[in-house]
Amino acid sequence: MLTPVNLASQFDDVTELWSPKVVGRVNDQYVKVARVHGEFVWHSHEEEDELFLVVRGSLRIQLEDGDVTVGAGEFVVVPRGVRHNPVAAEECWVMLIETVTTKHTGEVTSERTRTIEEQLGEGVR
Amino acid sequence: MLTPVNLASQFDDVTELWSPKVVGRVNDQYVKVARVHGEFVWHSHEEEDELFLVVRGSLRIQLEDGDVTVGAGEFVVVPRGVRHNPVAAEECWVMLIETVTTKHTGEVTSERTRTIEEQLGEGVR
Repeated sequence: MLTPVNLASQFDDVTELWSPKVVGRVNDQYVKVARVHGEFVWHSHEEEDELFLVVRGSLRIQLEDGDVTVGAGEFVVVPRGVRHNPVAAEECWVMLIETVTTKHTGEVTSERTRTIEEQLGEGVR
Repeated sequence: MLTPVNLASQFDDVTELWSPKVVGRVNDQYVKVARVHGEFVWHSHEEEDELFLVVRGSLRIQLEDGDVTVGAGEFVVVPRGVRHNPVAAEECWVMLIETVTTKHTGEVTSERTRTIEEQLGEGVR
């Protein structure tokens, strides 16, 4: 039997900012949630697109040719190879869809980098 | 420059029930929206999982071992190979994530079957 996942509830036990939590998988993509506030780190994913769906608040994604602001109920896909840096002036809840092999900080390793084991919850294959 | 997509607004120009509309792509997955009401058709996708995120209303997915009801703000992933049949007692708005090659009625062809060209909006690669 399948169990529905309440998206907003998935943020309840996320206490650390910028630390994605895997809440589902569809094909070769992970569905993740993250609470973000402040500035992340400039990075890119050479082979992988990344979808950001804002569940609460507002996310500004800095791009080399300007910024895009994503409001609650909106999504944007950052194409592969595009350098970007997410910034949230106030706390923002975001759902991510990205390939299972995607490193969330790209080839950049920072204090914010989390391994996929750290991101994986229970019950997701 | 990237343009955010307002998810709820994507349903505005969907007039036909059970006719998915592609509103984005992330890697090898399409993001689709569909307005559904009534009963779809029993089918499966042998090689592909399918994610259903309910945006408005409630969706009951009939499975061979029972039903799962997905409410607004909830998602469920129907694993590959699992026969299923979506049913909505009242109109329901659903976001789907599925592989670009997925046939939305599986190997079943019915009056509800739409080609990918029929599902593709403008501006999605």
